[in-house]
Amino acid sequence: MQQALQHMRVIDLTQVLAGPYCTMVLGDLGADVIKVEKYPNGDDSRIMGPYFEEESYSFMMANRNKRGIRLNIKEEAGREILYDLVRSADVFIENYRPGVTKKLGIDYETLRELNPGLIYCSISGYGQTGPYSHKGGYDIMAQGLSGLMSMTGEKNGRPVKNGIAIHDIAAGVTAIYSIMAAYIHKMTTGEGQHIDLSLVDSGLAWTVWESAAYFGAGEVSRANGSAHRVTAPYQGFSTKNGNILVGAGNQKLWEKFCKEVIEKEELIDDPRFLTNSERTANLPELETIIESVLVQQDSQYWLEKLDAAGVPSSPIYQYDEALNDPHIRSRDMVIEYEHPLAGMIQSLGFPAKFSQTPGQIKRPAPLLGQHTREVLQELQYSEETIRQLEENKVI
Amino acid sequence: MQQALQHMRVIDLTQVLAGPYCTMVLGDLGADVIKVEKYPNGDDSRIMGPYFEEESYSFMMANRNKRGIRLNIKEEAGREILYDLVRSADVFIENYRPGVTKKLGIDYETLRELNPGLIYCSISGYGQTGPYSHKGGYDIMAQGLSGLMSMTGEKNGRPVKNGIAIHDIAAGVTAIYSIMAAYIHKMTTGEGQHIDLSLVDSGLAWTVWESAAYFGAGEVSRANGSAHRVTAPYQGFSTKNGNILVGAGNQKLWEKFCKEVIEKEELIDDPRFLTNSERTANLPELETIIESVLVQQDSQYWLEKLDAAGVPSSPIYQYDEALNDPHIRSRDMVIEYEHPLAGMIQSLGFPAKFSQTPGQIKRPAPLLGQHTREVLQELQYSEETIRQLEENKVI
Repeated sequence: MQQALQHMRVIDLTQVLAGPYCTMVLGDLGADVIKVEKYPNGDDSRIMGPYFEEESYSFMMANRNKRGIRLNIKEEAGREILYDLVRSADVFIENYRPGVTKKLGIDYETLRELNPGLIYCSISGYGQTGPYSHKGGYDIMAQGLSGLMSMTGEKNGRPVKNGIAIHDIAAGVTAIYSIMAAYIHKMTTGEGQHIDLSLVDSGLAWTVWESAAYFGAGEVSRANGSAHRVTAPYQGFSTKNGNILVGAGNQKLWEKFCKEVIEKEELIDDPRFLTNSERTANLPELETIIESVLVQQDSQYWLEKLDAAGVPSSPIYQYDEALNDPHIRSRDMVIEYEHPLAGMIQSLGFPAKFSQTPGQIKRPAPLLGQHTREVLQELQYSEETIRQLEENKVI
Repeated sequence: MQQALQHMRVIDLTQVLAGPYCTMVLGDLGADVIKVEKYPNGDDSRIMGPYFEEESYSFMMANRNKRGIRLNIKEEAGREILYDLVRSADVFIENYRPGVTKKLGIDYETLRELNPGLIYCSISGYGQTGPYSHKGGYDIMAQGLSGLMSMTGEKNGRPVKNGIAIHDIAAGVTAIYSIMAAYIHKMTTGEGQHIDLSLVDSGLAWTVWESAAYFGAGEVSRANGSAHRVTAPYQGFSTKNGNILVGAGNQKLWEKFCKEVIEKEELIDDPRFLTNSERTANLPELETIIESVLVQQDSQYWLEKLDAAGVPSSPIYQYDEALNDPHIRSRDMVIEYEHPLAGMIQSLGFPAKFSQTPGQIKRPAPLLGQHTREVLQELQYSEETIRQLEENKVI
């Protein structure tokens, strides 16, 4: 089966989540990804739990479909190996703090001399330029700086973070499409380029509605629990055994909800709830009334009633319920494959379903240094040279 | 200046956020995006506030760099125009509920007959297959189903939604890179294909660490306020005038934090806080002690002290503070351009900084039907035909 990126070769010097998520997706789509891990201990996520047969499950989840080599690029000989890899590649991706690649002799200006067609992608917390560029930036700092945390949480409550490392992921997926765009340009012109992206910018670019409210009306979006900022009732409610989402997003659905779901037709003519703007204005009372009914039955009872009435709804799943939901399983979002140490392991599937060039799992995450010898042999290094490099603690 | 996608032509039948975000980014990178809006009123987001000179700011924020035509595809003549557009295109993208495109005669099987190289991308709430595929799915429903909401909020509190429409964005960015991957395949083989993606799958695929915890150890990730699940102190704290983030992520940083920031050296030897695991286990007491100190001074005071001590930190900005931060401004994340009705408007910038093929704003969001005549003329429709189509309420 053909894959979309089967001709793309990627040299990956990133670690932890943002960069590895990017190169995992490139690998899922067929790219030959060579993950270069630092000497001696490799990717920092190798010491993140949980452990399974002495392998980090976190590392395994973010590094499938990559070959792995261990390389000491602080040694001259190690840097020369990296240069050889760069000469053979389309894409180079790194997530050092700005300035470090220059010290290491692997900055864009240096590497493009070796390979003018190189696509060089830099991921950092704050970007290569600007007053904070020198700072170390982590996902949670980006969530604070972008305003995302202040928009998330209970109304007037403390800011809470998003359940996942969303700015790390934002930088990772922005890197995926940016590298592909640069690759399309390279396919037509042969020209490479440098891409500078940050955790902060990548997540901030997603605040589309919030920017409209601010630029258009000076409104600052703030945390509002599970509730929609301008539509009600459109939020989560407690039931007897959990929480569900109800999306009575217009007048017709609101009236159906009152008549056919909670059976409180009198609410329709209640002056506090006549229109959406009144329901939004009097949301606390509305929540109390609705919840007083919903807590009398289990979630399943209400979800069936909501479905029957044609009012959009959903369970609010715990994460294990999500992964075991029959629909999510039917979409192949939970897959299994063999890992040399961990045996048969479970993993998340590939989200986009391609009819001709599907995402595929061709190899599990590499053991530390698993492919060092194989890759050096491809670069025509002799057995003797490889042995010396090992002795000299370069690989 | 060249752009990466300058040879890509996109016919966009999507509306509101997921699809429009995707085609906006394709347009920012140079694609010729023709937005086809439904007759008579166009994209539903045109009636979302805030309004500015009678134009929806929400619509303007998600639809720059597109030409817009209005078309009644329920009419035979309108469908024929769409077919002509499809013959001229590389990419077709739609977000109808599964099954509707078949009824409208614009499903993949039909359109590939007209253009075998067509990349046809379908975005829906739950995907084209599986038991829930027939349901209408919105961002908040996907946040509930994926488990994301249950991981977000105060510990043991009610689930809250992410501050932004994160599953809409997830589907949009997954569509961006999937379309580019399919385009790379088309450039080498001429072959088109169908891409099926959903709001639920796209966001679920981002729960990398959470899947590792579950698949590797059966741990279900749950909401934990602003705190990191396995590192402490690594979270938000209240100050005298707001909230800040402190990331004392290892023993060395913890000790610096005690000595140089809050000046409570005795905490280092306190048996409750000796190691990270003890600090995590006794987090409530730790939070109380730290916050009792931090509330005595303003955020700025603590951020400077944290910086001086080299302990990672960040403000927790309100959204307006984020957009006005000098670093974010220096990264061109807030830009201005002219709109025919709204005048000079502000918008979010393009997150990835390309050295050779930068994202560019070449045109503001289209007025409803603004480019109908221009596009039909490109397709060689005569003045007389165009006039008739207008009379017959097809355009």
